[in-house]
Amino acid sequence: MTKDTDHKTWKNKLHEIIYEADTPMGKVFDVTLLILIVLSIVFVMLESVKGLPIDIYEFLYYAEWVITIFFTFEYIARIISIKKPTSYIFSFYGIIDLLSTIPLYLSFFFAGSSALLTVRALRLLRIFRILKISRYIGESNKLVKAIKDSRAKILVFLFAVLVLCIIMGTVMYIVEGEESGFKSIPISVYWCIVTLTTVGYGDIAPVTPLGQFLAAIIMIMGYGIIAVPTGIVSAEYTHQTKKVHLNTQSCNNCNESNHRDDAKFCHKCGEDLLK
Amino acid sequence: MTKDTDHKTWKNKLHEIIYEADTPMGKVFDVTLLILIVLSIVFVMLESVKGLPIDIYEFLYYAEWVITIFFTFEYIARIISIKKPTSYIFSFYGIIDLLSTIPLYLSFFFAGSSALLTVRALRLLRIFRILKISRYIGESNKLVKAIKDSRAKILVFLFAVLVLCIIMGTVMYIVEGEESGFKSIPISVYWCIVTLTTVGYGDIAPVTPLGQFLAAIIMIMGYGIIAVPTGIVSAEYTHQTKKVHLNTQSCNNCNESNHRDDAKFCHKCGEDLLK
Amino acid sequence: MTKDTDHKTWKNKLHEIIYEADTPMGKVFDVTLLILIVLSIVFVMLESVKGLPIDIYEFLYYAEWVITIFFTFEYIARIISIKKPTSYIFSFYGIIDLLSTIPLYLSFFFAGSSALLTVRALRLLRIFRILKISRYIGESNKLVKAIKDSRAKILVFLFAVLVLCIIMGTVMYIVEGEESGFKSIPISVYWCIVTLTTVGYGDIAPVTPLGQFLAAIIMIMGYGIIAVPTGIVSAEYTHQTKKVHLNTQSCNNCNESNHRDDAKFCHKCGEDLLK
Amino acid sequence: MTKDTDHKTWKNKLHEIIYEADTPMGKVFDVTLLILIVLSIVFVMLESVKGLPIDIYEFLYYAEWVITIFFTFEYIARIISIKKPTSYIFSFYGIIDLLSTIPLYLSFFFAGSSALLTVRALRLLRIFRILKISRYIGESNKLVKAIKDSRAKILVFLFAVLVLCIIMGTVMYIVEGEESGFKSIPISVYWCIVTLTTVGYGDIAPVTPLGQFLAAIIMIMGYGIIAVPTGIVSAEYTHQTKKVHLNTQSCNNCNESNHRDDAKFCHKCGEDLLK
Repeated sequence: MTKDTDHKTWKNKLHEIIYEADTPMGKVFDVTLLILIVLSIVFVMLESVKGLPIDIYEFLYYAEWVITIFFTFEYIARIISIKKPTSYIFSFYGIIDLLSTIPLYLSFFFAGSSALLTVRALRLLRIFRILKISRYIGESNKLVKAIKDSRAKILVFLFAVLVLCIIMGTVMYIVEGEESGFKSIPISVYWCIVTLTTVGYGDIAPVTPLGQFLAAIIMIMGYGIIAVPTGIVSAEYTHQTKKVHLNTQSCNNCNESNHRDDAKFCHKCGEDLLK
Repeated sequence: MTKDTDHKTWKNKLHEIIYEADTPMGKVFDVTLLILIVLSIVFVMLESVKGLPIDIYEFLYYAEWVITIFFTFEYIARIISIKKPTSYIFSFYGIIDLLSTIPLYLSFFFAGSSALLTVRALRLLRIFRILKISRYIGESNKLVKAIKDSRAKILVFLFAVLVLCIIMGTVMYIVEGEESGFKSIPISVYWCIVTLTTVGYGDIAPVTPLGQFLAAIIMIMGYGIIAVPTGIVSAEYTHQTKKVHLNTQSCNNCNESNHRDDAKFCHKCGEDLLK
Repeated sequence: MTKDTDHKTWKNKLHEIIYEADTPMGKVFDVTLLILIVLSIVFVMLESVKGLPIDIYEFLYYAEWVITIFFTFEYIARIISIKKPTSYIFSFYGIIDLLSTIPLYLSFFFAGSSALLTVRALRLLRIFRILKISRYIGESNKLVKAIKDSRAKILVFLFAVLVLCIIMGTVMYIVEGEESGFKSIPISVYWCIVTLTTVGYGDIAPVTPLGQFLAAIIMIMGYGIIAVPTGIVSAEYTHQTKKVHLNTQSCNNCNESNHRDDAKFCHKCGEDLLK
Repeated sequence: MTKDTDHKTWKNKLHEIIYEADTPMGKVFDVTLLILIVLSIVFVMLESVKGLPIDIYEFLYYAEWVITIFFTFEYIARIISIKKPTSYIFSFYGIIDLLSTIPLYLSFFFAGSSALLTVRALRLLRIFRILKISRYIGESNKLVKAIKDSRAKILVFLFAVLVLCIIMGTVMYIVEGEESGFKSIPISVYWCIVTLTTVGYGDIAPVTPLGQFLAAIIMIMGYGIIAVPTGIVSAEYTHQTKKVHLNTQSCNNCNESNHRDDAKFCHKCGEDLLK
């Protein structure tokens, strides 16, 4: 029984170190992890650069193994130290942690095969490790909430943009034709998105007067309707900020907060707030 | 008389299926229609892509006929099942539905003529089928209302942008001249719109120092005045959000309105709002 | 004496037609003027296009004279019909009207000289006729007011952008050097403005890793600080809209309006507003 | 003792001239300084332009020495006239002033060495003189405050943009490959930033259908999420404006705050606010 308690204590301690950041050990663990993630991302990016001294590629190879082994231990430790392992394994961070660990093993496993491209793609999956950092930011911030609240409106907006791009893309395909680079409707729609979002690569550009006239209209529309998502998020965000301003008083009876600043009575139970 | 009632019932049932989405049959009809529209759009776009296997073009040809025939039946059914057919035929959706149906028939009709381009353009009119989807989104959403309310201001703004582009385009035509690609005033105005909306293709770009100086001013103006449509929609939208979230209830005792949506008691006199 | 009265009446009538839009004749005059302005602008733009049939250029030449003579009569009529001609001549619209009339005469006058370019530029001054339209929009709208109220803040913002562009442009000049197109500091500053305002022509683009890294930072800054002018105008505009909402009540005592919606007493004289 | 007082007076006078702008002499000093700064910046920029007449470069050389010597005297005067020189020397403006002065001396000092590039870079440090102007604008304005208050949120947003660009850049590297210009992950991430911020140079552009599809998604995301920083600053700024315009007075009778700035009587109880 003592052993079981010991075991439990050991597990609890691990849990404290890994999942919490209050203890000194937990802080050390968090900072180490953060540094390793950033280093790992830098290494993945460097690996893809051609023409560096060969020593660097060798160093990157070994560094990668060290980091992967650390992440492996972290993943196992997270599973062991939690009471309900499945709640972690199938959570967002559980999947991210797994994806951060296995690419190297898988690429090692498939290395014998001829599918070199697959191996490379697999190794590059490591870039998703960057999402491990989001753990330290917290989803609960107001920004994310504002975006979530305006999700439906943003989707309607994006759909409207898509409809506009499909129609204008088709019209431009007819007007400009294939000689100007508008080779097919999908390409024209792509061009339309490039133009409406004001990116404007210039790899495809209208050359006929009518095409340029239509393009000008698309641009001005793009320039104007950018106001819409901004208006949505602004309003939603202002609204959220305001809610916070309602937070000054708290009812003595029902403990409801979020009252209007000038409220004299609780809007939930009718208690006199000024008592 | 029974027959007439039967007839009426049959018509009513059709109306229920087509115009409403509450019954299971209505839902099935809506989902089928939605899938067919999306498929149709994808097919129209695919048709324009060169270099696919010939089988695909053949499949697209037959698929197009199947979809068109379905849309034909839908159009006829919609006319039959409504009490006042003209109210549908000349409505926005009535015209869209007709435009979604006839292009193939018309292109078939004109196929013998030499006007191949017209035929192709006619066939591509099918892309407007995408507007059939808007039926499922509803115009009544706040976004559209905010834009409608700020229509007048947006038009004034767009006019101001146009005036600015015409004047600056003419100035750039004088400054840069035809060697730099500013071949005529309309082209210069087009360039000015491309620049002011921050699209910036780069197919035409100023090369003289004075031209680049003026271009820089146009860019900064474009960068700055984008704030204007955003400000309009933001303010209009914030206004709308506020109306909706506060103005619903009115106290029986003190007549104070502007209560929170979830208020049960008046925040001014404590009166029970739910009485 | 009767003649004098007649004279006055005639002058008044002209004033009514030209300066007001309430009478049928005034409306006809305004619409004619509007059409002539738009036509004139279209003609100026067409004139610069090369390669049209020669008949069109001839037509444009005569049309230009007709329009100019009409504008000349309008200018004279405006001076005659007003009581204090100087108040019109030196006003914004007086100068615009003069600029809309004289270019053709001046170009005719200078035609003998060798300064062909000056003549062309003079003729193109006619494009400023477009500003005559602004008479029909009115400067008093809320939009213009919001921009005017935030003028000081916008200037500070533009100055900050300029400082940023000068510093980053110089840094890029050192980093990228002349081989990449960053030929001088003014050119680099121009590139920096092109990038920061997200126009991005692509005629000059960084090629060294460090240059691309710095460019990425400039882009993200440009993407982020666009929020600033938007925030300014939004806030100013929301503020203005709010003022309007305060306009519901009017004091019986001092006739002050602009009260808060929930005001029970006049904020100026203390009069009970609810009486 | 009289001498000491004289000394002090002389120092105080210098302090008044340099650090304050109320006296006529102070104003003259400020305007002179402002003109010299602007001239200096123009000279530094002109110096880098190739192909001007040789006389100009000579003039720029001497003008530079004159300006530098003036700035040297200004720097020394600022140190002498202040009571605690270190509080100035290590302040933001102290460092800027030093940076504005020494580049020429340093470049003169290093001129003998072979490191010509370093000398040029050093000389260009003079561009930071532009920051001397910020002294005349003042950091205390609302704009800067709004940005400072939303710093944390903006950093989270920029981090999110970076994460998105790293992931999408890697995906594009796999999809497009090196033939399309996506030579390495850092280059792909650079392209992704260029696209997401809607700059769009066009030096690198996707050519495969899948690449163009993903690029379209990135563009629309960039177009949409620009709303986020705008929303943040708008809300923060609106909040600031509101505070300033309403919260100034509080009624002595009913303690109601939130009066209009120009209110003379309480809008709730009619109490005279000016008592």
